[in-house]
Amino acid sequence: MNHTCQIRVYYEDTDAGGVVYYANYLKYAERGRSEYLRAQGFENKALMDNEGVMFVVHRIEADYHAPARLDDLLDMHTEISEIRSAAFTMEQEIRHGENPIFNMKVVLVCVNKEGRPARLPGDLKEVLEKNG
Amino acid sequence: MNHTCQIRVYYEDTDAGGVVYYANYLKYAERGRSEYLRAQGFENKALMDNEGVMFVVHRIEADYHAPARLDDLLDMHTEISEIRSAAFTMEQEIRHGENPIFNMKVVLVCVNKEGRPARLPGDLKEVLEKNG
Amino acid sequence: MNHTCQIRVYYEDTDAGGVVYYANYLKYAERGRSEYLRAQGFENKALMDNEGVMFVVHRIEADYHAPARLDDLLDMHTEISEIRSAAFTMEQEIRHGENPIFNMKVVLVCVNKEGRPARLPGDLKEVLEKNG
Amino acid sequence: MNHTCQIRVYYEDTDAGGVVYYANYLKYAERGRSEYLRAQGFENKALMDNEGVMFVVHRIEADYHAPARLDDLLDMHTEISEIRSAAFTMEQEIRHGENPIFNMKVVLVCVNKEGRPARLPGDLKEVLEKNG
Repeated sequence: MNHTCQIRVYYEDTDAGGVVYYANYLKYAERGRSEYLRAQGFENKALMDNEGVMFVVHRIEADYHAPARLDDLLDMHTEISEIRSAAFTMEQEIRHGENPIFNMKVVLVCVNKEGRPARLPGDLKEVLEKNG
Repeated sequence: MNHTCQIRVYYEDTDAGGVVYYANYLKYAERGRSEYLRAQGFENKALMDNEGVMFVVHRIEADYHAPARLDDLLDMHTEISEIRSAAFTMEQEIRHGENPIFNMKVVLVCVNKEGRPARLPGDLKEVLEKNG
Repeated sequence: MNHTCQIRVYYEDTDAGGVVYYANYLKYAERGRSEYLRAQGFENKALMDNEGVMFVVHRIEADYHAPARLDDLLDMHTEISEIRSAAFTMEQEIRHGENPIFNMKVVLVCVNKEGRPARLPGDLKEVLEKNG
Repeated sequence: MNHTCQIRVYYEDTDAGGVVYYANYLKYAERGRSEYLRAQGFENKALMDNEGVMFVVHRIEADYHAPARLDDLLDMHTEISEIRSAAFTMEQEIRHGENPIFNMKVVLVCVNKEGRPARLPGDLKEVLEKNG
């Protein structure tokens, strides 16, 4: 599954260079991952409250191809590329129309309330594997 | 006209208190104002590029009624309450279902590229007055 | 007591208008309040962990006088103006040299872990009253 | 040269997981790079106004070792690892005392006002090479 959602660029996202500030693409990416999970029936707060787990970012590799600008409507693509017992990897890409803006590979680790690695909840792992 | 758009709460918006960080409601409000203008046919970047004007915040008064939380889907209401030659006032309210979360009165001034007060573009003023 | 700390403007704080984004002055203000408390021997995390309380913003009134820009070094002034059993009010001002940039009156409420109003810890109240 | 500055964690930096939000380490890193340049006599705004250039991020690789928390005082280390005619690479590390929190390799490209690659200003290149 290749999940896509749209993201609008607001003033809050831009900087004095006139373009989206480099850290804010990571916010967009996190929205994309949250919507990917929500589309599969999983929400961050419920995972924390009911399963006692959350996902923390372990590593990112990101390339900035072209700047996004105020009022741009961007497409955020998210897909899963690897699943382990307590971690998974996602590939994300932001496009403005046909133009690539940003892409990122992100490794997420599932942790419990004490911040220690924890197995992915079984039903989530099943869904991710089906999409992988 | 009472414009409404929806805003989802993501991790980026929350703080260690477990709720939306107080400054981030102002980001939501700015999204609401941008969408209000866009629904009327005006975009910030085009106003800057074509008319040489932008809107800067002059004053805000805001009340925080209850906290919004991760994954909440909020309703952002925006309406115009006063229009002058180079400024206008908007009333904005955020609700989570029936529950009031935040409301703000914001005075915006129209400025030119040098940052000096400038008359509102005529077609925009007309639209705002029709809605006021 | 009138507490002052310095704040540098970075790219993250600015927007496509070339100035500090309006919500980010509230971040600066929160840093100022945290440093005010730290200078008196109180830290947010310790208050939460040891006393089970935190401060939530109840109301703000803010005026934007002039824009701050990239690389500016700002002075953040914070003082207490009113103290109640479970709330207090602070007056904050940002200046760039002699030039007023922003000022805000903020009402903070002390809440417990359930988010209900709670009495200010006695030693903190004593310190605030001494400064008020 | 290995430049170090200190960064305090405020509420604005944290998220509902109780730790610093993953994108915010990139803000810290940008502060570190700005302070590195400032310590060498270069400021972003002056580079833009006087030389007509700015630095845009081309690629990042980052590892998250352990979470930083509210009120932590972090050490931000920045050093230059490679210099080209229109680009340079920096290695950055955040520590909390002895504990590694975050490290990042970032490739920056020098661009002109039209966003096209431009040679590094000669005096800046000289300073970077001296430190590299």
